[in-house]
Amino acid sequence: MSAELKELYKNKLIDGKKHAASIRSEIKRNIETSNIKPTLAIVQVGNRPDSSLYVRMKKKSAAESGIKAVHHLLSDSVSQESLLTLIDSLNNNNKVNGIIVQLPLPKHLNEDEITERVITSKDVDGFGPDNIGELHRRNGVPLFEPCTPKGIITLLDRENVQIKGANALVIGRSDIVGGPVAALLQKRDATVTIAHSKTDHATLVNFIRNADIIVVAVGVANFLSEELWKEADNTRNPVIIDVGTNYIPDETKKSGSRCVGDVDFNNVIPNVSKVTPVPGGVGPMTVACLLQNTWIAAKRAASKYDTGLKTLS
Amino acid sequence: MSAELKELYKNKLIDGKKHAASIRSEIKRNIETSNIKPTLAIVQVGNRPDSSLYVRMKKKSAAESGIKAVHHLLSDSVSQESLLTLIDSLNNNNKVNGIIVQLPLPKHLNEDEITERVITSKDVDGFGPDNIGELHRRNGVPLFEPCTPKGIITLLDRENVQIKGANALVIGRSDIVGGPVAALLQKRDATVTIAHSKTDHATLVNFIRNADIIVVAVGVANFLSEELWKEADNTRNPVIIDVGTNYIPDETKKSGSRCVGDVDFNNVIPNVSKVTPVPGGVGPMTVACLLQNTWIAAKRAASKYDTGLKTLS
Ligand SMILES: NC(=O)C1=CN([C@@H]2O[C@H](COP(=O)(O)OP(=O)(O)OC[C@H]3O[C@@H](n4cnc5c(N)ncnc54)[C@H](OP(=O)(O)O)[C@@H]3O)[C@@H](O)[C@H]2O)C=CC1
Ligand SMILES: NC(=O)C1=CN([C@@H]2O[C@H](COP(=O)(O)OP(=O)(O)OC[C@H]3O[C@@H](n4cnc5c(N)ncnc54)[C@H](OP(=O)(O)O)[C@@H]3O)[C@@H](O)[C@H]2O)C=CC1
Repeated sequence: MSAELKELYKNKLIDGKKHAASIRSEIKRNIETSNIKPTLAIVQVGNRPDSSLYVRMKKKSAAESGIKAVHHLLSDSVSQESLLTLIDSLNNNNKVNGIIVQLPLPKHLNEDEITERVITSKDVDGFGPDNIGELHRRNGVPLFEPCTPKGIITLLDRENVQIKGANALVIGRSDIVGGPVAALLQKRDATVTIAHSKTDHATLVNFIRNADIIVVAVGVANFLSEELWKEADNTRNPVIIDVGTNYIPDETKKSGSRCVGDVDFNNVIPNVSKVTPVPGGVGPMTVACLLQNTWIAAKRAASKYDTGLKTLS
Repeated sequence: MSAELKELYKNKLIDGKKHAASIRSEIKRNIETSNIKPTLAIVQVGNRPDSSLYVRMKKKSAAESGIKAVHHLLSDSVSQESLLTLIDSLNNNNKVNGIIVQLPLPKHLNEDEITERVITSKDVDGFGPDNIGELHRRNGVPLFEPCTPKGIITLLDRENVQIKGANALVIGRSDIVGGPVAALLQKRDATVTIAHSKTDHATLVNFIRNADIIVVAVGVANFLSEELWKEADNTRNPVIIDVGTNYIPDETKKSGSRCVGDVDFNNVIPNVSKVTPVPGGVGPMTVACLLQNTWIAAKRAASKYDTGLKTLS
């Protein structure tokens, strides 16, 4: 984005980096005024470059928040059994408050069995069956909300976007973004529609036209294109949350590529009230919410040990 | 409904009684050609007249399907502990294939704890956490789909209504109807919107206008009124599933009341392709699907014992 555009649309931009930084310092302050030392265990198998990048970002943000991150880097060929044994030992270790397994895992491992093994009270990614079940019950309260969806709701709240009664369109229905963000928006009393690859064009256009909040989590660069946007002709001054992270070729970059979202940002922004940039929108919030969940887990564990109560988590 | 109207709209009427009867005879045939004797345990606490009515209907339909129903009628003042002990013994009893707890329970009992205690392989109501979790995962496959939502999908299928790609509006978001029927419609690739009491009028009107399938599960007689319908002006020839069962005063009835749905049937029917009546639409299908789930549970249990495999359920 050019400097002029940036200036022009400054107050339309939802600055995820800024909000994430403020959440990190809030966590840090909270930790400093407590005698709690939260610890997050990060389990990584193999060294896919993208996974290693995400783990590095999580460790860096954890350090900035005053949270200790312990990185368990296992060989590509680790067995299902050893991995489960590690999870069990982390489950049973009172010094560990949160456990995440960096996905995807190598094909020979059963991802579901492994993520489901993480005890609910330490499932800070919020993907375990108990947390997902609570998320989808009318009056359910998950112990931890999944991080990307929680980050999106937090951004909307911090930007004073009214969720209750809003017409919310979620494009994408995955278990880690589309599905749970739809559930959270509905819990906050939005009227929610979920669109996906089987939604026909005319239907999609019509839903985009009438939405107040649009979450795009498809994973296709330029999915919400200038053309589609013009066709939809949304006059409701909507808020757009762009979750996509797509790498497209860019010769001007040393790496040869750059990261863009699912939305044609420059062409869509004139007709919206607010929009998240990529990078710097949802991404940093995902990590901040992971740390917030870890802090919550540590607080719960501490109060449990303090009072002797076993019911809190 | 007058006889003339009935004649006029015969092919618009989705005859749930007929479909349910055909499902019951299918179950009966299947049982007769097997050596399996399915048993359903029905746990009822107290004798609320509505609960007793529903239990009677389930027992009658079970008999018609060749399924043995064992009715456990407990006193209003039964303790949480005794009820859990009963559930445990039913869980452990190889002769019992399906277990349902007739809701609502008296206030002093913890409904969640009791329904969650039913072992997943016998949770033929489909309300337990494992089944709900699977229902809401992108590629999840519940062991049992909840009965009213399953009955609705079965009706749509048997009436050759195209679900894939349809624009489906679900009004109501309860855990027993609205939420799970939305999940099932989405699994079948409809684009689904859930409206509820916080959806404003204009938004609701707009969604009704553009829907191909409308499931009304609100519990308010005449909710989808002639007025609302005219305002929405849906020209897509939609299918309407009326889940509501509301009792309104009727002096011409011995009981002093009669049962109506949420939809102003007579005034809405001219502009729809199909609609379920109340009574005689979704209601009988709910019971038929409960028996179908019980038959499935019994078949699974039998094949497990036959082969010695423990993995099937
Ligand atoms: N910033 C962050 O922190 C995070 C970013 N992401 C990014 O978000 C994006 C989505 O991730 P994720 O949800 O895991 O991806 P998935 O691939 O699991 O899901 C993509 C969804 O988009 C739908 N879709 C695909 N094509 C179309 C289309 N033409 N029209 C409408 N819908 C379509 C799919 O539909 P169907 O179900 O029918 O196949 C599917 O539901 C990715 O770019 C990912 O990198 C993800 C997690 C965190
Ligand atoms: N035929 C059958 O087999 C069955 C029939 N039923 C019948 O279906 C109906 C619904 O049952 P159930 O889901 O358990 O009921 P609930 O009362 O649990 O849920 C009703 C839903 O309707 C919503 N609602 C209430 N008022 C409005 C309004 N003005 N506009 C839009 N939405 C509204 C509520 O919204 P909110 O969430 O915001 O409160 C809620 O989500 C009842 O009549 C029940 O008897 C139920 C089960 C089986």
